[in-house]
Amino acid sequence: MGLNLGLIVSALGGELHGDPAQEITGIAPLETATVGQLSFLSHPKYQQQLTHSQAACVIVSTQLRAEAMARGPCILTDEPYLYFARLTQLWKKTQHIRHKNQPNIHPSAVVDPEAHVHHSARIGALCVVERGARIGADTELKPRVTVAENCVLGMRCLVHSGVVIGSDGFGFAPHDGAWEKIEQLGAVRIGDDVEIGANTCIDRGALDDTVIEDGVKLDNLIQIGHNVRVGKHTAMAGCAGVAGSATIGAHCTIGGGAVVLGHLTISDGVHISASSVVTRSIAQPGHYTGFFPLDDNARWEKNAASLKQLASLRERIRSLENKLKTLDSP
Amino acid sequence: MGLNLGLIVSALGGELHGDPAQEITGIAPLETATVGQLSFLSHPKYQQQLTHSQAACVIVSTQLRAEAMARGPCILTDEPYLYFARLTQLWKKTQHIRHKNQPNIHPSAVVDPEAHVHHSARIGALCVVERGARIGADTELKPRVTVAENCVLGMRCLVHSGVVIGSDGFGFAPHDGAWEKIEQLGAVRIGDDVEIGANTCIDRGALDDTVIEDGVKLDNLIQIGHNVRVGKHTAMAGCAGVAGSATIGAHCTIGGGAVVLGHLTISDGVHISASSVVTRSIAQPGHYTGFFPLDDNARWEKNAASLKQLASLRERIRSLENKLKTLDSP
Amino acid sequence: MGLNLGLIVSALGGELHGDPAQEITGIAPLETATVGQLSFLSHPKYQQQLTHSQAACVIVSTQLRAEAMARGPCILTDEPYLYFARLTQLWKKTQHIRHKNQPNIHPSAVVDPEAHVHHSARIGALCVVERGARIGADTELKPRVTVAENCVLGMRCLVHSGVVIGSDGFGFAPHDGAWEKIEQLGAVRIGDDVEIGANTCIDRGALDDTVIEDGVKLDNLIQIGHNVRVGKHTAMAGCAGVAGSATIGAHCTIGGGAVVLGHLTISDGVHISASSVVTRSIAQPGHYTGFFPLDDNARWEKNAASLKQLASLRERIRSLENKLKTLDSP
Repeated sequence: MGLNLGLIVSALGGELHGDPAQEITGIAPLETATVGQLSFLSHPKYQQQLTHSQAACVIVSTQLRAEAMARGPCILTDEPYLYFARLTQLWKKTQHIRHKNQPNIHPSAVVDPEAHVHHSARIGALCVVERGARIGADTELKPRVTVAENCVLGMRCLVHSGVVIGSDGFGFAPHDGAWEKIEQLGAVRIGDDVEIGANTCIDRGALDDTVIEDGVKLDNLIQIGHNVRVGKHTAMAGCAGVAGSATIGAHCTIGGGAVVLGHLTISDGVHISASSVVTRSIAQPGHYTGFFPLDDNARWEKNAASLKQLASLRERIRSLENKLKTLDSP
Repeated sequence: MGLNLGLIVSALGGELHGDPAQEITGIAPLETATVGQLSFLSHPKYQQQLTHSQAACVIVSTQLRAEAMARGPCILTDEPYLYFARLTQLWKKTQHIRHKNQPNIHPSAVVDPEAHVHHSARIGALCVVERGARIGADTELKPRVTVAENCVLGMRCLVHSGVVIGSDGFGFAPHDGAWEKIEQLGAVRIGDDVEIGANTCIDRGALDDTVIEDGVKLDNLIQIGHNVRVGKHTAMAGCAGVAGSATIGAHCTIGGGAVVLGHLTISDGVHISASSVVTRSIAQPGHYTGFFPLDDNARWEKNAASLKQLASLRERIRSLENKLKTLDSP
Repeated sequence: MGLNLGLIVSALGGELHGDPAQEITGIAPLETATVGQLSFLSHPKYQQQLTHSQAACVIVSTQLRAEAMARGPCILTDEPYLYFARLTQLWKKTQHIRHKNQPNIHPSAVVDPEAHVHHSARIGALCVVERGARIGADTELKPRVTVAENCVLGMRCLVHSGVVIGSDGFGFAPHDGAWEKIEQLGAVRIGDDVEIGANTCIDRGALDDTVIEDGVKLDNLIQIGHNVRVGKHTAMAGCAGVAGSATIGAHCTIGGGAVVLGHLTISDGVHISASSVVTRSIAQPGHYTGFFPLDDNARWEKNAASLKQLASLRERIRSLENKLKTLDSP
């Protein structure tokens, strides 16, 4: 089933300049869009690409009304990037209509009779949902996801392939040079509208639960330790790791490969750069960074060697300052 | 089935002050424990929480006998954290008794007829155990684990969902600008009492085996390269990576996201901080660290820019020192 | 079935000095090879091990003809490491002949009727291949691999257990403090002779495809974001992460745990050290590094503290230089 411009604006709003009957064959970036495709200008800095785009129609900010209309057919909207996002959703829905008659629980999935799966939830092939687990309305598990005992997902969550929810937290008591297992008796509680990327792991709590609040977005290969709490609408990029019992506020962003150590508290609105290590609690919203800047290897080697003497270099500067003071004012 | 205080001390020892018939409904931290729950004080610094805890009973060090008894029912023990660990084990066992009659090999698991699975081992749903693999007594594979050809796990291991044991090591010979595969002919040998976290990978050796010794604890999303050897009771936190042919001693700890480069030897008793990179062998036990300290992004930018000139700053200090020497002693 | 030296040189070439009828029982490093095993000397620096090796035969560079023949049986070749690589392939093939009559698609795999799997491809146990996906000739998926809708793998690829190809890219439009999903409408296109390590994830593109070119080798637990392009014969070590829309050239190497930020372009022939963060495009081939050097924790603490004042230390040096200039030339 196709989409035309008229159907799009009747579903998503916006001010259409162009033929409502124009069929749309796809969505593409400005530069590569061909005749028949719909494109969008998300940021004024790409304005130059607008003029030359061959797209059938372009989604543009109302602020660029004149430029857009000079080019040709367009949909004007206050938030073109948001409009684009919703268009992708509409597009996907249209494309997938014919596949809707698949069973909601794939026959190869292993769902415990004591698990609670909402009738509108979809459980992909080869998933495992253990007893006591709860999967909310319209939540989708892609293939090969594990939801372990008593873990709870809210509504409209999307969980990608390979995710493990409810593995044991990493808890051991040292004893005679070995490690005594602390059984992880808590579970994982995930709110509504949470997306969890491929092969990400969320450990169950030791006594209480690990909690992921509404609207959180986790990318792939992320590690969330036991008893962590991630606040609403926080987003984390791939390969990030959050150690046990850390509390991360709402509306934070955590960059790829960043590490948050255990038992810390990070306030709302904190942004951590990629590959940075958070070693102390952060009470102030803001942007925090800590990684070694990339350099040509030879220069890095020299600077890295000097870095190992930095504290003594500082002493030498102090000593120079003192000597100079003596010389200066004898 | 419930647990009462009498059953607990008869199983785990300790000096009970309180009613042995008191039923326990759960285990909880001091601050949140409600009437009926058992709690523990693992460290004297939380002593203040003891006084106000509503727990039915608290596990406390014998050193705090007076304080504990002043509050009310308690179990006194020399090692309260260890006691707590064992209590969680006892608790879990009690809770799970009714589920014990599940088959040891889940019918959805794919176990090769030429694999050797001990009759007491448990293989979870949708696991794959390839031919020649050996799974020891009382070892448990959670759902969706792969144990590839000829890999061996000892007794009482716990392997979490998504783990891959015996994937090929990353070995290629460069040839005409491309990579020629080196088939990985070794396997993985894992000792007794090893725990392996969700989605962790342990590669098979190139010629010899990759070896994980007894009592090693690996958290989630860890990468262990081919021919690595990890010594007894070493623990690694999530997202750590160990490159090929590294040898890590016994009783080490490797922090989250840390990287150990290939072909290195790390002695027993070495502790590596999170996100640190080990680039040379370490012969001395101790605590080693190497990550850029987190800072406000603007300050980080300034310091990072200066860092790229650190070697030349060092030269400038030396030059200043020389000049000052000349001035000082003309 | 066994291999003897004669069969080996007739398959792989090289100049044999020794008995062609000598049976080979295995391949082993020089130091541990026992009588009956074949070994190799890949680098002249291990020459000392040659003399004492008990191997039945050793693969050696023609440059070390005299030394090799003085020891005993050998195969002389211009590229002993490449020869070794091919020997491992020959060895594996010989060992696996008897298992060849397994079905190409494991009965437990879930392959959509609208997926296209070449008749010579092998799909392991508990894999999921979704509709529209294409698996090329002689490509092998190990157990528990996901290839999502419309993703394409070329010929002779090897995909290890737990890999997820075609999970959604991480794309959201911010809206009223929450995140609006951007459906990921592209796919993943993977060339020929690509190897993908265990639990690695490759996200589908937002509009266009994510592309992995011929001969690329990815280790375990790597994250490849949406719309990334990785050029021919580039190799990445474990735990590396490449953020969305980055373009990496051909013949690059990316070290373990390294991070490449989004929308960057890295030219051909760039080598990134382990745990380094690439924050800008790199136009020049070369070796680039950026990680904090490991140190004893106490020294690291001192240096890290000083690092937070580095920009001001630089100012103090400048100020000292100025003062000294004034003193020097009054």
